[in-house]
Amino acid sequence: MEAYCLKNTWYIAAWTDEVLENAVFARTICDEPVALMRDANGVARALEDRCAHRGLPLSQGQVINGQVRCRYHGAEFDGCTGKCSRIPGQATIPAAAKVRTYPVVEQDRAVWIWMGDPERADPSGIPRFELHREPGWACRPTHQLIRADHQLISDNLMDLTHVGFVHVGTLGGDPEHHANANLKVDRTPHGVRVTRIMQDTVPGPFHVRQGGFKGRVDRWQIIEYRPGVVYIDSGMTDAGQGGPFELRDGVFNLRKVLYNGITPETAHSSHYFWSMAHQVGADRPEYVEGFFREVAATFAEDLDIIEAQYQRRRDLPGRPTFDRVSDAGGIQSRRLLARLMSEEQEVSRNAA
Amino acid sequence: MEAYCLKNTWYIAAWTDEVLENAVFARTICDEPVALMRDANGVARALEDRCAHRGLPLSQGQVINGQVRCRYHGAEFDGCTGKCSRIPGQATIPAAAKVRTYPVVEQDRAVWIWMGDPERADPSGIPRFELHREPGWACRPTHQLIRADHQLISDNLMDLTHVGFVHVGTLGGDPEHHANANLKVDRTPHGVRVTRIMQDTVPGPFHVRQGGFKGRVDRWQIIEYRPGVVYIDSGMTDAGQGGPFELRDGVFNLRKVLYNGITPETAHSSHYFWSMAHQVGADRPEYVEGFFREVAATFAEDLDIIEAQYQRRRDLPGRPTFDRVSDAGGIQSRRLLARLMSEEQEVSRNAA
Amino acid sequence: MEAYCLKNTWYIAAWTDEVLENAVFARTICDEPVALMRDANGVARALEDRCAHRGLPLSQGQVINGQVRCRYHGAEFDGCTGKCSRIPGQATIPAAAKVRTYPVVEQDRAVWIWMGDPERADPSGIPRFELHREPGWACRPTHQLIRADHQLISDNLMDLTHVGFVHVGTLGGDPEHHANANLKVDRTPHGVRVTRIMQDTVPGPFHVRQGGFKGRVDRWQIIEYRPGVVYIDSGMTDAGQGGPFELRDGVFNLRKVLYNGITPETAHSSHYFWSMAHQVGADRPEYVEGFFREVAATFAEDLDIIEAQYQRRRDLPGRPTFDRVSDAGGIQSRRLLARLMSEEQEVSRNAA
Repeated sequence: MEAYCLKNTWYIAAWTDEVLENAVFARTICDEPVALMRDANGVARALEDRCAHRGLPLSQGQVINGQVRCRYHGAEFDGCTGKCSRIPGQATIPAAAKVRTYPVVEQDRAVWIWMGDPERADPSGIPRFELHREPGWACRPTHQLIRADHQLISDNLMDLTHVGFVHVGTLGGDPEHHANANLKVDRTPHGVRVTRIMQDTVPGPFHVRQGGFKGRVDRWQIIEYRPGVVYIDSGMTDAGQGGPFELRDGVFNLRKVLYNGITPETAHSSHYFWSMAHQVGADRPEYVEGFFREVAATFAEDLDIIEAQYQRRRDLPGRPTFDRVSDAGGIQSRRLLARLMSEEQEVSRNAA
Repeated sequence: MEAYCLKNTWYIAAWTDEVLENAVFARTICDEPVALMRDANGVARALEDRCAHRGLPLSQGQVINGQVRCRYHGAEFDGCTGKCSRIPGQATIPAAAKVRTYPVVEQDRAVWIWMGDPERADPSGIPRFELHREPGWACRPTHQLIRADHQLISDNLMDLTHVGFVHVGTLGGDPEHHANANLKVDRTPHGVRVTRIMQDTVPGPFHVRQGGFKGRVDRWQIIEYRPGVVYIDSGMTDAGQGGPFELRDGVFNLRKVLYNGITPETAHSSHYFWSMAHQVGADRPEYVEGFFREVAATFAEDLDIIEAQYQRRRDLPGRPTFDRVSDAGGIQSRRLLARLMSEEQEVSRNAA
Repeated sequence: MEAYCLKNTWYIAAWTDEVLENAVFARTICDEPVALMRDANGVARALEDRCAHRGLPLSQGQVINGQVRCRYHGAEFDGCTGKCSRIPGQATIPAAAKVRTYPVVEQDRAVWIWMGDPERADPSGIPRFELHREPGWACRPTHQLIRADHQLISDNLMDLTHVGFVHVGTLGGDPEHHANANLKVDRTPHGVRVTRIMQDTVPGPFHVRQGGFKGRVDRWQIIEYRPGVVYIDSGMTDAGQGGPFELRDGVFNLRKVLYNGITPETAHSSHYFWSMAHQVGADRPEYVEGFFREVAATFAEDLDIIEAQYQRRRDLPGRPTFDRVSDAGGIQSRRLLARLMSEEQEVSRNAA
């Protein structure tokens, strides 16, 4: 099978809340079934989700004293080394009694995993989701599965002109203004950044409801792509209050930071981890709830679009397409990823 | 993939009622996803159902001023030429911004489409469904999807001995009389015709209920196959009233004309468009309703049979079969289609 | 396709109760769709489940005078010879009008079928399920489909150490005692036998409820594998009452005999026919009902495990595994079957 994703990179495997104490759960990442658990010290671990004895998924088992025990015949495996630590009824443990493990780091409310060469796994390269730890900010990390190639998800986020057409009832706004936003694309140390500014435009229904805007507004979005992650730092003020990015005292600003983890499940499906952090109303649970519901409804619209788009592209492979001006950020992101994947394949071939 | 259907022929894409003003809907024909819509003048149009920008089905979009607008980023396409007529936020439209279109003609309450070489599309060759326009006749054009190769549907219609076994509770009649019907098969300018006559036989439960027959009857069916279409003109009178085809004054005749459009969806599924026109009770809505329900129940039985038959033939390809005398019409139809497909393939190869 | 099962062996096609008078039903065995019916004398017959006329499954038809009549056009076939016995409307029956038949023997409440070379079908080799006919014994023959290769089902039965881990709420017992049971593996004329003895152990919840055990027990299981069949003769007495296998007067013994028919449906699915015969409470319908419900719940747990295990092994083919001491019976059974299959393939190649 042709490579469809980067292996030597950090992906979100799960949100912290998904990996419970004394439990094990299953998630497929880059076509590899992974069992996620916590060891006796509460440290998150990731193992190949297959008992090396007779093949039952380990995720169907239990965690006993920090070891995962297979539900079928009770063999136990260590989450750190992957070695079988116990076989009921026999003292000797064969050398073959072990499963693969993956480097895992838990940080900023996410469990990050490295599916590539473990020797290259450097925790300092893990993307930060700082606002997940910042007092005064609220968020609700959410996971959904999208039946599409991961690059269609980053394409979606890198060209926000779709907001005016797809999210009419929530984030929307005037589609013509979206299409004519001031657009800048540049490279960052690890990726590609798109800056979009719309001045003197209309707010979306979401902003009216959640931000209380009554008239025209200035609106901006800073979108940064890195393999596996897209950040969106976006904000809105009443029009003419000092313009984009100016966060002066006394000027209300509905700033939202959207963290997106995009983790390939298979060539045809992706995990989409999203979390929209906001300061406004962060101390009021009913506001946080309402805010979350609107954003979730918006992402449900994206999911519909992306899955339909992917299915059609699979049905009709190789048909000609055209690019628009607003595709620039997505195109540069795809080029960057293609180059990194090509380098990774080259290294693999040389090693083989 | 081996060709499984004729391309250079007219197929029903939809009934007229299915293609609404200011809407677009999806139907796959000969493996090609098609978006059907009406332009600003109400004329039915058919486009490739894929936005040439990023591949979303156009059928998920809207019709705005007679153009179909993609739901994702708002590109608009012309239903007649397939050319992109507008890209929000930019004045220049790339030459590649276009999609395929298909010749379409609306006639006799059906939207006909030509999936082959557009240069060979001659509207004068479109089969007529005249009774759809005839005052005093009632019908309810209906669409159903059958998960089977299209030729199994025409086989079903070309050998009506199955009526006695499959449609026991509706069209039925004595299965032995069906099997022993007087049978004639001949060629027509565009196809194959089977004429079946059963004299002094028993009516089916349907005929008793809808035609009021109390005793023995004469019954006839004239079935004509053309690629993509099967007509059945059938009738029944009290036995000995002058015999088949005689439509004399004062003799009640339950004549029904069944129009069948058989349009390949894929190699493994077909669109079945059927419409049974009748004069008796045409002015009484409750009669038309009851008549329709009985016929629909009958076709539901055919669907079950045909799908089960197709599945078994796929499971056990190449197993030996035998033919019966009553298969003559179906066999000739298949031979005709095989010859036309072979000629079409020959032309394609020479052109390539 | 690589052979995945033995053909020249007797398999259970159905329990006797499943094959009704004047009816025909469908079951796929070794990838072959089979129509099971009874002829005019009530004798069970098995035919290829495909009308040789146009391919409809014969199992959709009716049995008329001991012949199976196709629902589509009414051709009739003889269950013994497979020959078409009648074609409505014509006197001549083509020589090709016949379907394959399979040797069938009904014995001990099961209908046995031979899918291989009919010349090698020797009814004296059919496994016996004697207690199905024994007065004073109760049982409820049951069928379930398992989406897994048949060998995973026999593996499950040949290593009962899983009982302590999988069947905690029913047959269970102390998992450590299960893992340390006294184990003996030997060959039988047609297969492999495992004898497991656990003395001075705790009963499972099932045995407390159904056997009334209050304290510690002795427990034994004699498991015998033959291709297509696994027998388990198991029992329990209060601890120290004379030990395993001793069925002395005055000593209560909860003996159960489990008959398992394992019949390949496809390479990826198997029919599992099971029946647990018991003497205790056999005359009390509510006891038989409760007993059956507990055993059925237990098998539902096995089904979950086996299907998950199979799916994971298909997802990750060729990954290394290790064996445990308690796998000895399963390994010998697999070796025996592999040898028999290899011999069968050799014969096929020489014949070809």
